[in-house]
Amino acid sequence: METKRERKKVRIRDGLARQNPILDTEISSNKGDINIRGYSINELLEYSNFEEAAYLVLNSELPNQSELEKFNDILVSKREIIPKKVQEVMGSFDGSEHPLNVIAACFSTISSEYAEKLKDSHEGKIDHAMNAISLYPVILAQHIRKRNGAKIEIIKKPELDHANNFIYESLGTVDKKKGAILNTILVGGLDMVLSPSTTAGRVTASTRSDFFSCMASSILAWKGYRHGAACEFAFRDLTTLMDDKIDTFEFYDMKNKSNIPSFGFGHPIYKKGDDPRVKKISPMAEFCYQNFGGTLYKKLQDVVLDMKKRNIHPNPNIYLASIIDSLGFPAQDAPSISFMGRVAGVSAHIIEESGPMRAMWVPKAHYNGIPNREYIPMEKRLG
Amino acid sequence: METKRERKKVRIRDGLARQNPILDTEISSNKGDINIRGYSINELLEYSNFEEAAYLVLNSELPNQSELEKFNDILVSKREIIPKKVQEVMGSFDGSEHPLNVIAACFSTISSEYAEKLKDSHEGKIDHAMNAISLYPVILAQHIRKRNGAKIEIIKKPELDHANNFIYESLGTVDKKKGAILNTILVGGLDMVLSPSTTAGRVTASTRSDFFSCMASSILAWKGYRHGAACEFAFRDLTTLMDDKIDTFEFYDMKNKSNIPSFGFGHPIYKKGDDPRVKKISPMAEFCYQNFGGTLYKKLQDVVLDMKKRNIHPNPNIYLASIIDSLGFPAQDAPSISFMGRVAGVSAHIIEESGPMRAMWVPKAHYNGIPNREYIPMEKRLG
Repeated sequence: METKRERKKVRIRDGLARQNPILDTEISSNKGDINIRGYSINELLEYSNFEEAAYLVLNSELPNQSELEKFNDILVSKREIIPKKVQEVMGSFDGSEHPLNVIAACFSTISSEYAEKLKDSHEGKIDHAMNAISLYPVILAQHIRKRNGAKIEIIKKPELDHANNFIYESLGTVDKKKGAILNTILVGGLDMVLSPSTTAGRVTASTRSDFFSCMASSILAWKGYRHGAACEFAFRDLTTLMDDKIDTFEFYDMKNKSNIPSFGFGHPIYKKGDDPRVKKISPMAEFCYQNFGGTLYKKLQDVVLDMKKRNIHPNPNIYLASIIDSLGFPAQDAPSISFMGRVAGVSAHIIEESGPMRAMWVPKAHYNGIPNREYIPMEKRLG
Repeated sequence: METKRERKKVRIRDGLARQNPILDTEISSNKGDINIRGYSINELLEYSNFEEAAYLVLNSELPNQSELEKFNDILVSKREIIPKKVQEVMGSFDGSEHPLNVIAACFSTISSEYAEKLKDSHEGKIDHAMNAISLYPVILAQHIRKRNGAKIEIIKKPELDHANNFIYESLGTVDKKKGAILNTILVGGLDMVLSPSTTAGRVTASTRSDFFSCMASSILAWKGYRHGAACEFAFRDLTTLMDDKIDTFEFYDMKNKSNIPSFGFGHPIYKKGDDPRVKKISPMAEFCYQNFGGTLYKKLQDVVLDMKKRNIHPNPNIYLASIIDSLGFPAQDAPSISFMGRVAGVSAHIIEESGPMRAMWVPKAHYNGIPNREYIPMEKRLG
């Protein structure tokens, strides 16, 4: 709980930019770089794995060897504890559900288990964050295994790191090359400042809702096709295009005529050329195809060439779709895999937002609707 | 799905006030009035029941007699359909969970059932809204019955309106006087512009997440004790004060010293006198006490008198707590009962936010954290 003194200073934030100070991250669009607690995302991608980057996001500093080992140990130990009630809720699903909804339902459930335990101390929130980071991939992996008809149990491999353990738990085999790719996705997806999912988590945290409710609120916002699910929809488009009877232009023209949005191409900022992130993710997609196979990559290359003839450029979502496919997951898993790293980033945002002195988010509304009017008694209404 | 043309115009909203136009409601703090689609909340409270007000919020106009009857019929018919998967998830709970988390988990689950059915047409969204409005009290009532050890089944009384049906389903008896009070709570709680719960729902909708995911995101934000749960916490404070061994000043001084926030007193706007809403809700609390009994009301009066000696004034949450108590519900049900009407208001916000031409919410972040720094290799880290 916040202190009386803090509470007295609770203000209402009206949504103006200067009232949204954040400590943990920054995107500087000038430099085309993402900055995590002062470190360039490129350096983290080169030198860090998910655990190190998650430690940094939660604690503001890179860990030393013993701090990192302790952090790993905690994450591993928390993997193995799925509260009974969450297991029961998971038992209600048959695997056909959208994974993000399953995780949000489980997180909303878990809130009742954990919400009261540690109150709102900073240490308690860090503990919640580590529960969320560890449980997220376990729930997702169990859901994937259920869908695949595999046995539902926690497969213990404490020697595996976060990424490798998820690969093992969801696909049933250890594959360190896949783990390395997933590590890159996790670090790269750690945080994106006030994206809608982060904003939903922060708005919820500003009311002093509990940690898992805030995270569930964030996950539900990630599910939108303009946001986290753009990659899932790009995946589905490519899958449709795999059918040789459909030509690229015909397909996108058909979507256009039917007023159905297309995904994986175009970007509101990079209108006249490649999104700079494509340069980084494109070789990764090729590496995944060469090493793990998959069906989307070859088609992706053809479609990109075709679209460039119309001066329409790909965005990272279509390459991420191909990577997820090469790793061995279907379209519906794409947004939940890409949120896996973001659990750490959003945790940092929730912890910060629920800290002392933060105002409640109440954006100013500019009413432009129906002006005041008098109540009309039923007998005088037309119809 | 939005059309290609709309999608081309998708902008990113940075959270500035002028970029948050809303059509459905307005709070004019000058006049101390809440305005719902042009009608004063006071007129709606006097003349409307929940169904009429919900129709207004969803359709911009008051219904005529046949429109209202049709609307009622749809709500009644939807009460009786709880998707199987939601029933299974509800079966995982034992009644001890926070009702808002149960409802959010069920709504996240239901999303997989309904999300794909009606796509994103306006009619589809209205249908989702009516599912949400009808299912919310049914889920809540079943949860309350389970907690009370009563038989879990849908009790059919199609002749009862929304409020009266909830009273019947949750408490097991028809009580029209209680239904009338609940109707007032539902209409009064219909909407409050961009409160955090509404904002979380709108932010989620701006990503084109599905209807039930948006509503769940909103519900999770309502759970905060600065927001929807303030009434639950005021209820708990009064319950503690019922113990005659604790004197009012001693209790609040003790909380103050332990840095635990207090609820039900004080307001960031009305610092020097009664919140104007207290004048309206206070006689309602007395009516409920006189008609239905309850244990909190008498204590509430003593505590209010005591606090006024210190020039600390009550806010509506403490009276709402007393009303919820008189109606026969415990503290933990207070925020879920007060959100029941808001389901309609938030539905209108979600529908509007997911309509054509709405930009995605990406508030500008003002980074004031650690400046750029160079990556430190593990062997050079202190510790």
